[in-house]
Amino acid sequence: MTKTIGIVLFPDFEDLDAIGPKEVFGMFALSSSGEWQVATISQDGEPVRSYLGTTIEADHSFGDCPQLEVLLVPGGLGTRTEVDNEAIIGFVRKQGTGADWITSVCTGAFLLHRAGFLDGKRATTHWGAIELLRQESNVTVVDDERWVKDGNVITAAGVSAGIDMALYLVAELTNSDKAKRVQHMMEYYPKPPQFAEAGEETQV
Amino acid sequence: MTKTIGIVLFPDFEDLDAIGPKEVFGMFALSSSGEWQVATISQDGEPVRSYLGTTIEADHSFGDCPQLEVLLVPGGLGTRTEVDNEAIIGFVRKQGTGADWITSVCTGAFLLHRAGFLDGKRATTHWGAIELLRQESNVTVVDDERWVKDGNVITAAGVSAGIDMALYLVAELTNSDKAKRVQHMMEYYPKPPQFAEAGEETQV
Repeated sequence: MTKTIGIVLFPDFEDLDAIGPKEVFGMFALSSSGEWQVATISQDGEPVRSYLGTTIEADHSFGDCPQLEVLLVPGGLGTRTEVDNEAIIGFVRKQGTGADWITSVCTGAFLLHRAGFLDGKRATTHWGAIELLRQESNVTVVDDERWVKDGNVITAAGVSAGIDMALYLVAELTNSDKAKRVQHMMEYYPKPPQFAEAGEETQV
Repeated sequence: MTKTIGIVLFPDFEDLDAIGPKEVFGMFALSSSGEWQVATISQDGEPVRSYLGTTIEADHSFGDCPQLEVLLVPGGLGTRTEVDNEAIIGFVRKQGTGADWITSVCTGAFLLHRAGFLDGKRATTHWGAIELLRQESNVTVVDDERWVKDGNVITAAGVSAGIDMALYLVAELTNSDKAKRVQHMMEYYPKPPQFAEAGEETQV
C-alpha cells in the first residue's frame, strides 16, 4: 500500500515552510515507483490561503485523511491562533500518534508542542520564536541547528530550513543515495548572494 | 502606484521554481509599505496544477494582468509543451517588453528564449537542460552559475537556484540591507545534509 507524507495547511501558513519540503518529498515520491505519495490536508478540505497570499488546494480534509507515515506541520503567523484550534491540535495528535515520523518547520513546532509531541524532547523553531519556545514547559530548545531530531520527532528552524530537514528525512526513509539524487534534481547546492552593508566588506 | 512582481503559472510547473522566489518576493513586498505586491498569473485565471500535484490559485488571467515590473517564469516539465503555446509566449513577450526585469528559473529559460529575450544573451537553466539550451541559436549558455544576469534579463539554474536569484534581485530592486533582512527572516543560511554513498567518507 502507498505510504503518505502529509502536509497540513492552515490559514496564514508560510509558503516555503510547506512547499520547500513538498518539493523534496514530491521528487522523492516520484522516484519511489508508487511506494510513496505526498498529500496536502486542510481542516475542511477547502483551499487555504497563506500569509503571503498564495492559495493552495487541499487533497484531504482532516476527516477523510488516511493515516500518514510522515506528518509535516509548517509554520507561519497562523500558528499563533492555530495553537488554540482544537480541530488542528486534535488532528496533529491523532495523526502523529500513528505516524512513523512527526515533523515541523519554523513555528509549526508550537503545534507539535501543543499536541504533546515535544514533551521532554530537544527541538527548534524560527530564530524569532526561540525565546517563546523556551518559555514552554518541558522542551529543551536548540537554537543553532537547521533541524533537530529527537526520536521520531524532527523540528526544523525557520522557513528555508525545512528543505534541509526534508532531505535529511528522505535519507532516513530510504538511503543517502536517494536523498542525494533528489538534491541533484532540485539543484540544491545553494549559494545565497553575499550582501555588503554600507561600508562593510563583502564576504566571499 | 503599487509595483507588481508577477509569477506565471502553467500546467506542470515545478513547485519550488515558483514558490521559492514567491517567498522571497512576498517577504520583500510585505516590508515595502505597499510599494510592491506579488501576483500569480495563469492563462485563464483558473487554478493550475504543478507537476508534483500542487494546485495553486491565480490572482490574474493573461487578459486581466496589469503591466508587471518584474516578470518571473518558472520551469518544470510543462515547459516542454508550453514553448509551443502561443498564448503564454505572447504573454511573456508582451509583459517582458514592458517590464523592468525579465527572469526565469530552471527550464523557464526556454519560454524566455521562445519569446525572444535570450537572443545574443548569456543565460542558464537546469543542469539537465543545459545541452538542449546550447542547441538553441544565439544564446551563450553558462553552466556553472546559480543565476546569470545579462542586461535586465536574469536566468536562474535549476529549481532551488530561483531562491538565490530572487534574493539577488531584491538587492537590485532596493538595496543589500533589504535583501539581507529577507534572507534573515526566511533563515536562508542553508546547510544541506551531507550524504555519504556506500563506502564513501561522509563530508563534513
